[in-house]
Amino acid sequence: MTVEVVAALREALGDRVDVSSPAREAARSDRSGHAAQGTPLAVVHAASVADVQTTLRIAHATRTPVVTRGAGTGLAGGANTGAGEIALSVRRMDQIIEVSPTDLLAVVEPGILNADLNDALAEYGLWWAPDPASRDISTVGGNIATGAGGLLCAKYGVVRDAVLGVDLVLADGTLLTLGHRSVKGVTGLDLTSLVIGSEGTLGVIVGATLKLRHRVPGQRRTVTATYPDVRAAAVAAAAVTAAGVQPAIMELMDTASLAAVHDLLRLDPPVAGQAQLTVQTDGPAAATEAATIVGILTDGGGDVTMAADDTEGERLLTIRRSMHPAMARLGTTLIEDVSVPRSRLAEMFDEISRVERTHGLQIPTVCHAGDGNLHPNFIFDGPEVPAEIWAAADDLFQAALRLGGTLTGEHGIGVLKRRWLADELGDDQWRLQRDLTRVFDPTGILNPGKVFAR
Amino acid sequence: MTVEVVAALREALGDRVDVSSPAREAARSDRSGHAAQGTPLAVVHAASVADVQTTLRIAHATRTPVVTRGAGTGLAGGANTGAGEIALSVRRMDQIIEVSPTDLLAVVEPGILNADLNDALAEYGLWWAPDPASRDISTVGGNIATGAGGLLCAKYGVVRDAVLGVDLVLADGTLLTLGHRSVKGVTGLDLTSLVIGSEGTLGVIVGATLKLRHRVPGQRRTVTATYPDVRAAAVAAAAVTAAGVQPAIMELMDTASLAAVHDLLRLDPPVAGQAQLTVQTDGPAAATEAATIVGILTDGGGDVTMAADDTEGERLLTIRRSMHPAMARLGTTLIEDVSVPRSRLAEMFDEISRVERTHGLQIPTVCHAGDGNLHPNFIFDGPEVPAEIWAAADDLFQAALRLGGTLTGEHGIGVLKRRWLADELGDDQWRLQRDLTRVFDPTGILNPGKVFAR
Repeated sequence: MTVEVVAALREALGDRVDVSSPAREAARSDRSGHAAQGTPLAVVHAASVADVQTTLRIAHATRTPVVTRGAGTGLAGGANTGAGEIALSVRRMDQIIEVSPTDLLAVVEPGILNADLNDALAEYGLWWAPDPASRDISTVGGNIATGAGGLLCAKYGVVRDAVLGVDLVLADGTLLTLGHRSVKGVTGLDLTSLVIGSEGTLGVIVGATLKLRHRVPGQRRTVTATYPDVRAAAVAAAAVTAAGVQPAIMELMDTASLAAVHDLLRLDPPVAGQAQLTVQTDGPAAATEAATIVGILTDGGGDVTMAADDTEGERLLTIRRSMHPAMARLGTTLIEDVSVPRSRLAEMFDEISRVERTHGLQIPTVCHAGDGNLHPNFIFDGPEVPAEIWAAADDLFQAALRLGGTLTGEHGIGVLKRRWLADELGDDQWRLQRDLTRVFDPTGILNPGKVFAR
Repeated sequence: MTVEVVAALREALGDRVDVSSPAREAARSDRSGHAAQGTPLAVVHAASVADVQTTLRIAHATRTPVVTRGAGTGLAGGANTGAGEIALSVRRMDQIIEVSPTDLLAVVEPGILNADLNDALAEYGLWWAPDPASRDISTVGGNIATGAGGLLCAKYGVVRDAVLGVDLVLADGTLLTLGHRSVKGVTGLDLTSLVIGSEGTLGVIVGATLKLRHRVPGQRRTVTATYPDVRAAAVAAAAVTAAGVQPAIMELMDTASLAAVHDLLRLDPPVAGQAQLTVQTDGPAAATEAATIVGILTDGGGDVTMAADDTEGERLLTIRRSMHPAMARLGTTLIEDVSVPRSRLAEMFDEISRVERTHGLQIPTVCHAGDGNLHPNFIFDGPEVPAEIWAAADDLFQAALRLGGTLTGEHGIGVLKRRWLADELGDDQWRLQRDLTRVFDPTGILNPGKVFAR
């Protein structure tokens, strides 16, 4: 049967069906470090919407599971493809179909990289705001499928705020055009939003109409503030939000994160216990907002420095942006992604300290402090997450939920967090959500075992 | 059977079940002027989530249709309740449960009026941005159920951008807590967005967690520009958007609208053919943005006036805000709500002129020019929309769809536009959306005959 599936794919799609060992092996994993059991049947490199429809018609007729992939930069295992499954890559569908400066929108194929799109938009003075840390290597389709976030979300929104419409191929190959090109539109149910963050369980995103912004005018201002402990830094960050100034970026790093990055970048090691906030303002009020923020951070006990110019500002932000490579040097990393209401940030750091003590671990943590999204990093040896790390992560998840937070702010559920999904949603909502996926995919061939699998 | 339903409701809910003729008669209609066939069994004035659950359990057990109502200010007939149906009013559930300035959120009951909420939030220096023209008389729950828009959407977003979570009672009485309190959250499917604009077909909204903004600092600037014809005004509005300045408000009125309002307000009649733009900027860059806008509007051939202060600015906007009472004096009004990409605004006005000529009608039109949402007004005598008016509206809808637009920008489908829904969605998406409603409401008791009924 699996032989027949591959033969049918090759018959229809020729050499766009890749059965080489390296391609099939690469499709087993994403950037989470986690890999699927077994190896997929084939990797289909779709070059068009028709290729995607053909693949799904064959999969649907033969009840073969399909896992959609972009650049494979996910952090929850959502695109990992295993035994008996087809890996459907849309990475080669990477064209910009249209840019409309008047309507502030772009129509793109899903495989274009976020950074490549933004390079092209810069020529128009335009910008697609979603800014995940992976922007240089992740696709727009993947950003939409995971509901990606990033550093700029408190001021400029998340992916949900930046997508007007999506073209979606259903499990049976039917093509739907969801959403609209106008700013407003309330015709029927908002299926565009339902697809955002659905992690390949509802259909294959083959096109998107994106809401653009004009590039922000004026010069940015960048401020760093060092605090004796992470709690003081978290309290200061909450005070900035509460004061009504809106930074573009507000990042918090704890001592362990700073130490790892400083070591990577060959900077002097930080003082033990210290934590750092890096805050950037932009737009016409950047200078006055930065001045207000300097006052708040100083009042909060911070040792505050203002960058002289954009170059120095970017140098300061490089410290935050070097977190992933710094962690990678320490071992295999499980990057967690809890999010809490901003007022509970200091308490969440207390909980992380408690989890560290209880489980005898160090958990280097960085945080998008402007929106309350934390990335605690669990470090271990070898390819599999050890049971004791999962036990600590479970402790951390439950703490985030108790504080009114969520399991995942921007990475998604994938395989790595599926067993906690019902803890957050409740059983009734979990079942309802799973039943909704069945309307899109009655035979359950789309990304089975992900998200809604316990 | 219907006697038993009312008896069961009274047994459980006492005098919160209103069977008086005036209450039942009032529940037949909304502000669209359209009324349901027949009279509902009863109006339930729910005072709590438990009351809503009780009502739905009885309705579910007896297969009795339920129509949820707030203040009854809808314009598409979505809350109209007819023979054999229960009108479930949540208007008396009007409490603010929580305001968190640090987390920039409020938790409210659905029946609170938009204006009452914003009056309360003003004490905190906060603001819920959705600003439908009905804000003084419409409820937050109704704003969410219809996906309401308003004047400020291009700059400050629509309801979809301003809701973090919704508490929803399903058809069988099950209470679900959807969404989150954090800025980011991608746990499972985004059911909050699915509920926004679902017009009572998925469940009853019994609570909402709203995303707030700080009040915008600084003084506003208001500019009006008069053009020899509506097309020139539309082109000038598109030029403002394309130039990268973002007004808070940009409203366009054609001659027929201006004439009706000027007559109501006892102002001099406008010059025949003339159209007017009213533009307001706010925030720290209000003055410089207004100066840029004056230049663009003048270059476009406009006769431009800048208001001396906020008071004069509000006086200029009063002309726009008097549109509904001015129309009401002319006869019964069918207020349409098409939305097009901003670049197609001038073409849409061409189409409206064509429809006027073809059908021998005058169609006074106002337009949220910043976001491309038009309200063409059809005027007629008597309570029922005549067939020739529907024929002209059909012509108008098809034109909007041809221009890449949508049937409804902010009013919803209700009963009045249900027969055009599949024209926009396509048959495949129409069926999929209807099937999704069945997951929430397997027996079809929630607002039957609305939205997904052909």
